[in-house]
Amino acid sequence: MGHDPRILCCPDGLVTDRRRYVKVLDCTIRDGGLCNSWKFDHDLVGKTFRALTEARVDYMEVGYRSSDEAISRDKVGPWRFCDEKDLEAVAARGDMKLSTMVDVGKVRAKDIPPVSDTMIGVVRIATYAHQIDEALELLKHCLDSGYETFINVMAVSVCEPDDMDRYLEKLAASQVHNVAVVDSFGALLPHHVRYLFRKYRSFLGNEKHIGMHAHNNLQNAYANTVAAIEEGADFVDATIHGIGRGAGNCPIESLLFYLENARYDVRPILDLVEEFALLRDELRWGYHLPYAISGFMNVHPKQAIAMMDTQARYQCTDYYDRLQKARAAGGRPSLD
Amino acid sequence: MGHDPRILCCPDGLVTDRRRYVKVLDCTIRDGGLCNSWKFDHDLVGKTFRALTEARVDYMEVGYRSSDEAISRDKVGPWRFCDEKDLEAVAARGDMKLSTMVDVGKVRAKDIPPVSDTMIGVVRIATYAHQIDEALELLKHCLDSGYETFINVMAVSVCEPDDMDRYLEKLAASQVHNVAVVDSFGALLPHHVRYLFRKYRSFLGNEKHIGMHAHNNLQNAYANTVAAIEEGADFVDATIHGIGRGAGNCPIESLLFYLENARYDVRPILDLVEEFALLRDELRWGYHLPYAISGFMNVHPKQAIAMMDTQARYQCTDYYDRLQKARAAGGRPSLD
Repeated sequence: MGHDPRILCCPDGLVTDRRRYVKVLDCTIRDGGLCNSWKFDHDLVGKTFRALTEARVDYMEVGYRSSDEAISRDKVGPWRFCDEKDLEAVAARGDMKLSTMVDVGKVRAKDIPPVSDTMIGVVRIATYAHQIDEALELLKHCLDSGYETFINVMAVSVCEPDDMDRYLEKLAASQVHNVAVVDSFGALLPHHVRYLFRKYRSFLGNEKHIGMHAHNNLQNAYANTVAAIEEGADFVDATIHGIGRGAGNCPIESLLFYLENARYDVRPILDLVEEFALLRDELRWGYHLPYAISGFMNVHPKQAIAMMDTQARYQCTDYYDRLQKARAAGGRPSLD
Repeated sequence: MGHDPRILCCPDGLVTDRRRYVKVLDCTIRDGGLCNSWKFDHDLVGKTFRALTEARVDYMEVGYRSSDEAISRDKVGPWRFCDEKDLEAVAARGDMKLSTMVDVGKVRAKDIPPVSDTMIGVVRIATYAHQIDEALELLKHCLDSGYETFINVMAVSVCEPDDMDRYLEKLAASQVHNVAVVDSFGALLPHHVRYLFRKYRSFLGNEKHIGMHAHNNLQNAYANTVAAIEEGADFVDATIHGIGRGAGNCPIESLLFYLENARYDVRPILDLVEEFALLRDELRWGYHLPYAISGFMNVHPKQAIAMMDTQARYQCTDYYDRLQKARAAGGRPSLD
């Protein structure tokens, strides 16, 4: 072994060259917004835009687009809507593609303008497996409107094999450009990620791009993202300092270290990590026992988040007992 | 896929049954002591002993044994010495084996009494590759004194292949019972761990036990420990809430979740995690940018630790630049 452990060849024959081809999607403001109801000030979002641009990151997801009927503007910050005036205040047109996510059921086609009328070039449709037909209708509108499209089928760790086959067949038959393996509950281990990438690839072929969106409940977001890249991921999601719902996501700074690709420059991001580290003290994403429990139990993190929001200490032995009992009884986990 | 993602079979043919056989060594007080100079009060160490006993953890490493000539008692707490009176105040003889670590060069044979004169049953010898002969002398004394023995060759990520071959040959020829793969710098990825386990096994055979000691600089301590178990690790190290030098270690609560082995009971540990979470606010182990940088750069964490100790903010762009420059110049990393 050389003195640099990263030059070790993979014992299972995987080539680290795959690091050269993968694209990086930053979703700091979008997924991080789940921690603070998208109330980032324009200054921080502008700084984030500029640092990611200098780092030559491929995509920046600046928030959600939402329907006024589904989400009350009083309760959330601007990045739950991504109005054009807000985008213009923080970003400029350039090489980095701007993305918004839309939630099936929380957006209508008329909330998504033709691509020529917006700074946004990419729409990511977030859906659960059972909503796939609705997602595909939204996809058609986005394609007709000229966007690059993603479909993120969430919470794959609770999908039955047959359900997964069904949505993958539908995605394969669609014109979607990119599909993400989404570990919403932070329940997956690297070997699950490898299995899912092989399954997704066998259904979707090489024409569609496949990527990874990881959560960090058991501190596997980075390792799962690395496993995805070793399995040939075309894109991976990451956020500054790992900010994101619950335990958060894969830290983009760790990811860019790993990629060691001259296409990227991690340096402009390092100062920004400082700012997000201050936010972490307040918003408390990262490794915490309630999140580790919800990840292990393969359930939605909402109860764990509520505990972290209302309690100074974890106090989660009861939570563990309740979930353990439900699990021992063989109940099927729900999506919420 | 069933609703429990953990029942997915491993796509590379590894069987998760290996979770049944691995033993768990807790080094909360020993490695955690590197964060606070082993100044844990007897109450907390006693609680830790009782929780680990109830959890049926196999080994508890209660600290170091050290020579009075090497370490000044004024500057450290009791667990840098593990005097018998301190052990008796916190622990009792039972099924859980008590271990102390000794550092080559910081202990003499006379500091290690016959096993019949102490509550300690296990000695772990920590050594760098170049000190292996001195370690083997110490080993002989420990074996003659009746202990179960470990040799932990530290900082494997900076070992040249030939040096590794040499110490593995010597370990294979010795009577040592257990050998740990030690990622002191938190630089390894899971595929490096797999490679090293296969290499260690090929030299050491099945008679000697091989285990993993991970560090969490890039949040890979847990994933690397899981990779080690998949590769057939006989034991793995972990600590309560991941406490340990720098970014810390593999959290024992996550590990016991993963093992799902009726031999263990994670529940008594959950309340203790609460107490260590309070300590984390003060001692600041876990994922922090300086540690991610030192892990990526494959260097000793001492400078990163000094930055975390003296600075409220990370302020580590200069640190990154300096290491990056040294790396670009092709310098061989040193052990300190």
